Amino acid sequence: MYEILETKERITADNDLEAAKLREKLKEKKVYFINLMGSPGAGKTTVLTHVINALKEKYRIGVMEADVDSSVDAETISKLGVRVIQLHSGGLCHMDADMTARGLDGLGIDGLDVVFLENIGNLVCPAEFDVGSALRMMILSVPEGDDKPLKYPLMFTVSDVMLINKIDVAPVFDFDIERCKSYVRKLNPDMEFFPVSALKGDGLEAFETWLIDRIETWRNEA
Amino acid sequence: MYEILETKERITADNDLEAAKLREKLKEKKVYFINLMGSPGAGKTTVLTHVINALKEKYRIGVMEADVDSSVDAETISKLGVRVIQLHSGGLCHMDADMTARGLDGLGIDGLDVVFLENIGNLVCPAEFDVGSALRMMILSVPEGDDKPLKYPLMFTVSDVMLINKIDVAPVFDFDIERCKSYVRKLNPDMEFFPVSALKGDGLEAFETWLIDRIETWRNEA
Repeated sequence: MYEILETKERITADNDLEAAKLREKLKEKKVYFINLMGSPGAGKTTVLTHVINALKEKYRIGVMEADVDSSVDAETISKLGVRVIQLHSGGLCHMDADMTARGLDGLGIDGLDVVFLENIGNLVCPAEFDVGSALRMMILSVPEGDDKPLKYPLMFTVSDVMLINKIDVAPVFDFDIERCKSYVRKLNPDMEFFPVSALKGDGLEAFETWLIDRIETWRNEA
Repeated sequence: MYEILETKERITADNDLEAAKLREKLKEKKVYFINLMGSPGAGKTTVLTHVINALKEKYRIGVMEADVDSSVDAETISKLGVRVIQLHSGGLCHMDADMTARGLDGLGIDGLDVVFLENIGNLVCPAEFDVGSALRMMILSVPEGDDKPLKYPLMFTVSDVMLINKIDVAPVFDFDIERCKSYVRKLNPDMEFFPVSALKGDGLEAFETWLIDRIETWRNEA
C-alpha cells in the first residue's frame, strides 16, 4: 500500500490570450502553424525532415527549432533548403506564446504557407502552453512504452494527431499499439493516429496526405 | 544558414537554500537520498526495481514516485515490499526541494537507510532543481540517441552517475556509446558510466556494487 500526496502548485497562464491573438494573426496571413511535440529522442527531427521533403514543392515552409541549447537540429533542417531559425529557451523546458511570437518575428513569416515549431523534447510542459498553433502534433516512440498516456495524460489530451514512431521495433519493446491507442482514446476520442517508422519512411505518406488535406481545408476556410 | 535567437527567461531559484537544509537534515538522520532522473521511458522504474531487489537485504529502503498523474510506478514498486509514496506534481515537470521535503515527511524517513526519488520523466527541469540529494543519478536510454548531451547539457553536467540503458538495442539505433561518453566528459569529466540493459539485468551488478561502496563511504563520513 502507498499514499498519494498532491504537490500541485499554481501555474500562471495568461498565456492563452497571447496564443489566441497569435492564432488570429496567423490566420489573417494564411500561415498554417504546427506545434510539434514529443520526448527527447522520439524522432521529431527525423519525421520533420521527411514531411518537409514531401511538402516543400507544394508549400513555402519555415521551421523554428526550439532547444534548451545547441543548434544540432537547425543544422539538419537548414540543409533541406527551407527557412530555419534556432530558438534557445535558456533552460526552460517549453515554448510559450510570447516566446513563439518573438520566434516568428525572427523567422519572418511573410511569404510562408506553413511553419513548424519543433518544441523542446518534453512530454509535460509543452502540453500546457498553447503557442497559437492551428495543429498540435505529437510523436510517441515505441521504446518509451505504451503506458505513457497514463503518465503524461495532458499531452495526449491536447494533441490533434499522434504519430507512433519506431514501430519497426515494437516486438522488441513489447509495445502494444492497440493498447496504447485505447489509453489515448479515453483521454481524447478525436485523436488521429499514424503508426510510422521515420527512419525507414514507413507510414509517413499516409500522414502527409492527411496533413495536406488538413492544411487545404484550413486554407479554404481562412 | 540560420539565426539563433535567445529566448531565455529568468528562473527564480531560492530553491538552493531549501535543498541545502534538507541535505543537512538527511545527513544527521543518516538517510542516503538519491535523485533518479531521465526521460519518459528511459527505464527508471525497471532499473529501480532491480536496484531495490539487490539492496533491500542490506538497507531499509524508501521510495518516492513523482509523477504528473497516475500511480503506475508506485504500484510496481510497492510490490517489492519497501516503503513507497506517490507524489503528484499536478502538471509541474519536476520536483523542487520544498515539494521533496513534503514528500519525505509524507513517506516518513525514520528507520530508513536509503531513499530514492524517482523524478518526473524529463531531461530539462529536474536538472535545474537541487532536491537535497546525496547522489544525482541519471538514465539515458539508447533509443533516445547519443546526441542528447549536446541538446540537454545541464542534466549531464549536474549528474554524478549515468546509466546508459537498453544497450542490447544499440546496433539497431546506431547509438555509439563511446561518442556519447565523449560528449558527456566535455561537460562533466567526473561522470561515472554504467552501460546496462535493465530488462535483461546486464551490467546492473557493477552499478550496484559501485552504489553500495558510495553509500558506505558516505555513512562512514556522516
